[in-house]
Amino acid sequence: MTLEVIILAAGQGSRMRSTLPKVLHPVAGKSMLSHVIDLASAVASSTTHVVIGHGADQVKQSITDPAIQWALQSEQNGTGHAVAQALPAVSDDARVLILYGDVPLTTPETIEKLIATSVSKASAEQLSLLTVELADPNGYGRIVRNSAAEVTAIVEQKDANAEQLKIGEVNTGIMCVSASALKRWLPKLSADNAQGEYYLTDIIAMAVSDGVPINVCQATEPMEVQGANNRIQLEELERFYQRRYADKLMLAGASLADASRIDVRGTLTTGNDVYIDINCVFEGDVILGDGVRIGPNCHISDTKIASDVEIKANSVLEGAVVGTDCSVGPFARLRPGTVLAAEVKIGNFVETKKANIGIGSKVSHLSYIGDAEIGSNVNVGAGTITCNYDGVNKFKTTLADEVFVGSNTALVAPVTVGKAATIGAGSVITGNIAEGELAVARGKQRNISGWQRPEKLARD
Amino acid sequence: MTLEVIILAAGQGSRMRSTLPKVLHPVAGKSMLSHVIDLASAVASSTTHVVIGHGADQVKQSITDPAIQWALQSEQNGTGHAVAQALPAVSDDARVLILYGDVPLTTPETIEKLIATSVSKASAEQLSLLTVELADPNGYGRIVRNSAAEVTAIVEQKDANAEQLKIGEVNTGIMCVSASALKRWLPKLSADNAQGEYYLTDIIAMAVSDGVPINVCQATEPMEVQGANNRIQLEELERFYQRRYADKLMLAGASLADASRIDVRGTLTTGNDVYIDINCVFEGDVILGDGVRIGPNCHISDTKIASDVEIKANSVLEGAVVGTDCSVGPFARLRPGTVLAAEVKIGNFVETKKANIGIGSKVSHLSYIGDAEIGSNVNVGAGTITCNYDGVNKFKTTLADEVFVGSNTALVAPVTVGKAATIGAGSVITGNIAEGELAVARGKQRNISGWQRPEKLARD
Amino acid sequence: MTLEVIILAAGQGSRMRSTLPKVLHPVAGKSMLSHVIDLASAVASSTTHVVIGHGADQVKQSITDPAIQWALQSEQNGTGHAVAQALPAVSDDARVLILYGDVPLTTPETIEKLIATSVSKASAEQLSLLTVELADPNGYGRIVRNSAAEVTAIVEQKDANAEQLKIGEVNTGIMCVSASALKRWLPKLSADNAQGEYYLTDIIAMAVSDGVPINVCQATEPMEVQGANNRIQLEELERFYQRRYADKLMLAGASLADASRIDVRGTLTTGNDVYIDINCVFEGDVILGDGVRIGPNCHISDTKIASDVEIKANSVLEGAVVGTDCSVGPFARLRPGTVLAAEVKIGNFVETKKANIGIGSKVSHLSYIGDAEIGSNVNVGAGTITCNYDGVNKFKTTLADEVFVGSNTALVAPVTVGKAATIGAGSVITGNIAEGELAVARGKQRNISGWQRPEKLARD
Repeated sequence: MTLEVIILAAGQGSRMRSTLPKVLHPVAGKSMLSHVIDLASAVASSTTHVVIGHGADQVKQSITDPAIQWALQSEQNGTGHAVAQALPAVSDDARVLILYGDVPLTTPETIEKLIATSVSKASAEQLSLLTVELADPNGYGRIVRNSAAEVTAIVEQKDANAEQLKIGEVNTGIMCVSASALKRWLPKLSADNAQGEYYLTDIIAMAVSDGVPINVCQATEPMEVQGANNRIQLEELERFYQRRYADKLMLAGASLADASRIDVRGTLTTGNDVYIDINCVFEGDVILGDGVRIGPNCHISDTKIASDVEIKANSVLEGAVVGTDCSVGPFARLRPGTVLAAEVKIGNFVETKKANIGIGSKVSHLSYIGDAEIGSNVNVGAGTITCNYDGVNKFKTTLADEVFVGSNTALVAPVTVGKAATIGAGSVITGNIAEGELAVARGKQRNISGWQRPEKLARD
Repeated sequence: MTLEVIILAAGQGSRMRSTLPKVLHPVAGKSMLSHVIDLASAVASSTTHVVIGHGADQVKQSITDPAIQWALQSEQNGTGHAVAQALPAVSDDARVLILYGDVPLTTPETIEKLIATSVSKASAEQLSLLTVELADPNGYGRIVRNSAAEVTAIVEQKDANAEQLKIGEVNTGIMCVSASALKRWLPKLSADNAQGEYYLTDIIAMAVSDGVPINVCQATEPMEVQGANNRIQLEELERFYQRRYADKLMLAGASLADASRIDVRGTLTTGNDVYIDINCVFEGDVILGDGVRIGPNCHISDTKIASDVEIKANSVLEGAVVGTDCSVGPFARLRPGTVLAAEVKIGNFVETKKANIGIGSKVSHLSYIGDAEIGSNVNVGAGTITCNYDGVNKFKTTLADEVFVGSNTALVAPVTVGKAATIGAGSVITGNIAEGELAVARGKQRNISGWQRPEKLARD
Repeated sequence: MTLEVIILAAGQGSRMRSTLPKVLHPVAGKSMLSHVIDLASAVASSTTHVVIGHGADQVKQSITDPAIQWALQSEQNGTGHAVAQALPAVSDDARVLILYGDVPLTTPETIEKLIATSVSKASAEQLSLLTVELADPNGYGRIVRNSAAEVTAIVEQKDANAEQLKIGEVNTGIMCVSASALKRWLPKLSADNAQGEYYLTDIIAMAVSDGVPINVCQATEPMEVQGANNRIQLEELERFYQRRYADKLMLAGASLADASRIDVRGTLTTGNDVYIDINCVFEGDVILGDGVRIGPNCHISDTKIASDVEIKANSVLEGAVVGTDCSVGPFARLRPGTVLAAEVKIGNFVETKKANIGIGSKVSHLSYIGDAEIGSNVNVGAGTITCNYDGVNKFKTTLADEVFVGSNTALVAPVTVGKAATIGAGSVITGNIAEGELAVARGKQRNISGWQRPEKLARD
């Protein structure tokens, strides 16, 4: 019996006050819908159907997985109506897992538990509900059970009696149900209610009436079944996601200065005894080797950092590879294509881009190193700039091992500097330098006595 | 019947441990007293009286509104005594709204509700109390009501019986009362208590005894009637204010990465689909257009940013105007007088000040652009510096459209560079350059072979 | 009767997933064990014994105090066994205070209260327990008292009856007990339990059975007796520590923009009316004078800042001394050996190191000032770099009072510039300059007309 997934993603989300369809709003840098599609892939190997409506094209274009089956719900007539749009494409003998494109943080573990509930009590037809226990269940449909703890009904807030209102277990809407039953029940749904919508929830009563067994599985945590209807709720999901990720990092052996002040928007892989100071942001795929220390306020994306590296305060790394025992920052910016060998030092107010920098080399202050091939044990003085751009083309700067670049040097690319060559401070280097040579390119100093300092000009 | 406001602002606030009078301590960048005066202006069009005492001159000087009526309370003899100092200047037929200079976060909506309570039940004399429901009312005066829910007394903690101690509704001290009643009651107050002070609260008993109707209005939230007696409470007010502001931004359609990590000290106006990353601080008047994205750790004050701009991590903007589709940062600093046209790029470690920069121009790295007029499609190379200051005067640098400034260039102002002119890297430009010209001002490179590197000197 | 301290610090802490022994994990920049040793020093003047086991050498090396008595527990056979390893070195007539190397945040006040309990009821032998009231005591040993409120037993979770399970007061393990009693009881401990360990707690039953009086003292706050078994708990301790420190700063008269966003890892001493913006980190000994304002995202270590200084956003200071009325940042980095006299201005993207800078001098933009002696009222232009390093040696730059350094200047050290001398922009200064002289060292500008701009090269 295959498991197909239907994800409801047609809503507009007008309370988001956005031009973006609701399900495309991001949590941890990824759209809510992508979170749910990833969840579907994690728990089911067969088809995933996504029901779209508002901003249908935009939603489709945001998802690259070609295996997704799209179903269009042209008018938003309720959850039951939405599921019905996808149902024709679902096999009669499948089980259907129903998820919501705006409920992004359910764990695969919880959904697997829900599915297992349905499997373990396999029968011709069945319905498994995911419920959750709320401290304040006000407004939600209560799960009513009989003395044998079997679910007998879901009672909506407005229909509940005093006893039922005290029930803390509520319906999440997430369910796993036999396609055959669904195909029988959905046509019978009525829109005879205040909103004039077809509610999926109404199939529960049909299940009870048909004697179809209802299994129940509880989510471990309200936030994992929480949806986002406005940006306040979106932010709550974001913070819950981040805190959960932080806990995972800590249990895996990373020390965080403040678990409430780390943001991971992608995947952060940490070695042993990694330390991450306050307020860091990680995006894309970031790998931190053993003993790496990240200072406060760093922003690191798509970067691989080898062991025992220290990234100091207020640094920004994007698309970089950093070798063991390097020291970077504070106030350093490594841009894409930066590859640092071991023991490299990149200091403050230094920007690198498409730069290979060899073992033990140092660029300590106020420099721009772009399109450069730098050997080992090179010392690049403060204020050095690779002039890699002529307005239309970019050119390469090559510094061999052990080169010493004096401060405030401009290296006009293309230029090659030989091994152990020395460049005098303040030089503008336009021609190649051979191994061991000293190059100087600067004006001669003249001291002029009797100099009269400028005076304050009258301004009108 | 006019509404006059009396704000009590005479206290020292010794627990603040400050040289600043208590009411001048800021919340969200504005003194507590200013918050209360703004509240008074929002709800009442007639006179606002402020009772001052400790640091009276400092308090007066901090408020620029010339319409404020100041009343001096030379000795701090209690709230009743304080109100009495302002009362002679209040019209007999006015209603008086009594506010507190150290209770800064009450909303106009709440106060309007309080006032409406008093109006709707208009009578010759009346007293309207603002109360609040506290989870822990310990220490506060309890609101005692009869079976008809009418207030019959305020019972102080020490005088309350077991039943009264359970009452969660407490007096906030904020009230709206007929001036005539106030003028009759205040002279009757007694200082026969532990503190030897005249308590305003004691007029409640007089109202009951005189048969003056007492109306009650509840604040929606304890923090909006919370005062600050020490800096811990001041910080609580700050965080409450900021969180409330964050919620407002989100409901209006801005996405915040973390609602607990944004600080607005002034007015932040956001367009549609604005995204603000963690830990940003906004001061003064800041306007963000549609689709603007602000990176982490930015500090932005008195700045207007047009639509679709990206401000990258760790940038500081003050008094700037940024055009559509610009990209700024990371590590950029725009200082006052910076005006960027559309599609300008300001990169890392770049400072601008009094600089007009035209469409599509780029200042990508490590530059200082001050007192400059820059045309469109200009490329300013890394390490370029406008030498705008001779020690006493500041001069202007003008770069026409399409100028290409090579890296590490010093532009010694006043200097004008013509359209599409080119400056060689590492130049010191002291004279004007005509349209289309190439200017070079640097030493010639000499390569010297057989160079002996310096050796480590012996130091003693 | 002397008071000796035994600190248990032998555990591995495998749930830390670390190569570092558990007690060496830091809270607020100091190992948990160091916190406990400091606590021991604060409350007791005589010997402190530390029982070590896992990573014994590493633990010993981390502590510099030569007075510590080390006891080795080769196998971890429980807390009773651990105490037994130290006991032979303890005087028979001492009282023994037992602390835990992974419970770092107990206050001296609480321990002094515990000790006082034992003293005030002095007797030949006694046992004083530190307990704490927990909202959720699940899993902890409950303190059972008789009707006279005397402790009669500690009942472990698994042995407790329904009534006892409701008890919220639990054992912390911290105790103060007569050495003589301890020496009598410990040999009688049994390892006949699930873990096969000798539990120190079992001596309580022996005390009851021996009629030794048991005194009890309650900790004021669960977190002060909380241990860290994994990095989540470690982070909780960190945040509790930081919040407690923040409250202390505020009560002492410092204003914090956000008490949840300040980290002090060492000692922060604040004068009157200090203001600290969000997200600052302080390490080592930092002293802030009266009226100092610290902007957001600053990282300050081992630095002394005099009164009325403003440190602007995103600055990093290490080992610096800053005089009154200075302005530093944003994006400034003061490194060790930086000494600023009064009224100095250090601006954006400026790095200083071993630099004495005189009254009223300015280094406003994009400069590196290292190994420098700078007089008063010196103006250092943007992009100025002291070329202090020849690859092996460092040399000094000396600028006398009132020197004006034009922008983009390289000062090749050793070099001395006389009083009120002027350096033209873009110069490379290699020789000394006398008082009042103007020095220029740059190429002459040539403007070339008819310049053909480079064209886009074909790339394959």
